[in-house]
Amino acid sequence: MSAFRDPLRESLDSAVTYSKDLFVRFGDCDPAGIVFYPKYLEIFNEMVEDWCRGELHFSFFEIVAQRGWGLPTVHLEVDFLAPSHFGETVNAALILRKVGKTSIGVDIVLRGPDKAVRVKGKVVLVLIDRRTNRAIDLPDDVRARLASLKPITEE
Amino acid sequence: MSAFRDPLRESLDSAVTYSKDLFVRFGDCDPAGIVFYPKYLEIFNEMVEDWCRGELHFSFFEIVAQRGWGLPTVHLEVDFLAPSHFGETVNAALILRKVGKTSIGVDIVLRGPDKAVRVKGKVVLVLIDRRTNRAIDLPDDVRARLASLKPITEE
Amino acid sequence: MSAFRDPLRESLDSAVTYSKDLFVRFGDCDPAGIVFYPKYLEIFNEMVEDWCRGELHFSFFEIVAQRGWGLPTVHLEVDFLAPSHFGETVNAALILRKVGKTSIGVDIVLRGPDKAVRVKGKVVLVLIDRRTNRAIDLPDDVRARLASLKPITEE
Amino acid sequence: MSAFRDPLRESLDSAVTYSKDLFVRFGDCDPAGIVFYPKYLEIFNEMVEDWCRGELHFSFFEIVAQRGWGLPTVHLEVDFLAPSHFGETVNAALILRKVGKTSIGVDIVLRGPDKAVRVKGKVVLVLIDRRTNRAIDLPDDVRARLASLKPITEE
Repeated sequence: MSAFRDPLRESLDSAVTYSKDLFVRFGDCDPAGIVFYPKYLEIFNEMVEDWCRGELHFSFFEIVAQRGWGLPTVHLEVDFLAPSHFGETVNAALILRKVGKTSIGVDIVLRGPDKAVRVKGKVVLVLIDRRTNRAIDLPDDVRARLASLKPITEE
Repeated sequence: MSAFRDPLRESLDSAVTYSKDLFVRFGDCDPAGIVFYPKYLEIFNEMVEDWCRGELHFSFFEIVAQRGWGLPTVHLEVDFLAPSHFGETVNAALILRKVGKTSIGVDIVLRGPDKAVRVKGKVVLVLIDRRTNRAIDLPDDVRARLASLKPITEE
Repeated sequence: MSAFRDPLRESLDSAVTYSKDLFVRFGDCDPAGIVFYPKYLEIFNEMVEDWCRGELHFSFFEIVAQRGWGLPTVHLEVDFLAPSHFGETVNAALILRKVGKTSIGVDIVLRGPDKAVRVKGKVVLVLIDRRTNRAIDLPDDVRARLASLKPITEE
Repeated sequence: MSAFRDPLRESLDSAVTYSKDLFVRFGDCDPAGIVFYPKYLEIFNEMVEDWCRGELHFSFFEIVAQRGWGLPTVHLEVDFLAPSHFGETVNAALILRKVGKTSIGVDIVLRGPDKAVRVKGKVVLVLIDRRTNRAIDLPDDVRARLASLKPITEE
C-alpha cells in the first residue's frame, strides 16, 4: 500500500456496498437554507437500515420486533465539509469498513452533484440482546454475507 | 349560551388546563425562517404528553409501557393563522373540550408575544388496548380528574 | 351524482394526481411500534413538495428561494383510521380537490398493503408573498396545469 | 496533573458552563423504546443554541438572521454508552473545551438519573460568513466571554 493511498477513494472504487441518491427537501433545511445537521444522522440511520434489509437480509424489523435484539449505533464520527442546500440531490454511499465479533463498522459518504464530499462519517453498530442489553455475536449467515462484501480493514 | 359566544375566548378565560411558553428554535424552522408545520404537531403531542403526566397523573409511560395501552390521536383539525419565527417565544395552551367514554377532545392554541393566535387546533385522542387495537373505557380515576377540569362541551 | 357516491373512491379512480409507495422506517415509529403521527404530516408535506416540483413545475425552491414567496399550509384536517407499523410499505396518494384564486386544496390518502385507508387528510395551501405575508394569485401557468388536472370540487 | 486525572470528571467539576434536565419524550424514542440517536444530535444543537443565547449573548438569531453568518457544526464525535428510555429525565451538560480563532470546541455529556454517562460527545463549531461560506474570526466580545469560561484545553 502506497503512502499516497486515499482510503476514501479506494473504498469508493472497491467497496461501496450500498448507494442511493437523496433529494434535499425543504423540511430537511434550517433558516440558513442548508441541511440541519441532525437530519444527516437520520440519513445515516436510513442508509444502515436499507443496507441491512436489502443487502444483509437482516432487517431492523427482524432484529428489533421478531428477535428482541437491537443494532444501536455506539460510536459516531462525522466531518461536515460543505453545506447541502434544499432542492439539491446528493449521493449517499455506505462502505463496509470492519466486521467484528459483535460489531459492524461502516463509512457513510455524501457527495454533492459535483462529486465533492459534503459529509463523511464513521458509524460503529453493535448487535445486542435487548433483554440483557449486552452485545451478542453476529449470526453466521449475516457474518457470511458481510465477509463476501470485503471490508476495507483487515482483522 | 349566547349566539355571540366566542368559544375560544371563553375557553381561554375559563378552561385552560395546561399552558407553557415555548422558545422557537433554529431547528424548528425551515428555509423560510418560520416553524416547519409538522413541528407544530410535535408540540401538540408534547402538550398532550405533559398534560397527561402532570395533570391527569396518567403518563404515556404508564399507558404504553406499563399497561400495554395507547392514546393515539385519531382526529386532528388545525388552522395555521400566522407564522412563528425562530428566536420568538410562543405560548401554548391546552383546553379540555370534551370527554367521551373512550375519548378525550382538546383544543390547543398557540399565541405569539402579542397574544394573537398563531395556530389553533382540535385533537381527539382515543384510549386503546394495543393487543386488540380497540377502544377501551377511560379509567375511573382519570375520568374523575377530567370531570373536575370542566370540559367546555357538555354531553 | 348519486347519493351513494363515495367521494374518496371516485377521487381515487379519477383524480389521483400523484402517488408513491413509502417504506415505514424504524425512525418514523414510536415506542408503540407505529408511526409517530407528526411524521405523517412530514409525509403530507413531502407529497405536496414532490407534486409541486414534479407535476406543477413549481418547485418549493423556485417558490421560496428564487421568488421570495411561500406556499404554507393554512388548514389541515386528518383522520388517523388505522396504525402503520415499521417495516410496512404504505401507498400515499395526492388528489387535487379545489383550486382557488390564491389557494390549492388537496386530499392525501395513505393506504396499507391491504388497500385499507390508514390516514386521510385535507390540506389547504395558500400562495403568499413573504415580504408582505399576504396571499397572492397563483401564476397563470400553474393555474393552467392545475385546471388540466380536473379538481374534484367545481367552483 | 495526575496520570489518574479523569478529564471528564474534572471538566464536570470545574468547567460546566451550561446544564439542564431533559425529559425523554415518547416522540423521542423508537420502537425499541429508547432515544432514536439522531434525536441526541438535536439535543446537542439545542444545548449549543441555548448556551450561545443565554451565556455568550450571541444568539443564533443574531448570527443567522441579523448578521448573515452561521455557526455550523463541522466535526462531531459521539459515544453512545447506554440507552435512555422514554419517561426518564436525563441531565445534559455543556463544557467548553477549546476556543480557536474562528472555532469553538465543546463537550456535551448526558447522564441518567444514576449519574452514569449515557452519551458523551465532542462538537466543533466554526463561525462563517454565509455569503462567502468562509470562516471568520469570533467577535471580540464573544471571545472575551469565552475566555472567562476557562476552556479545558490550553492553547
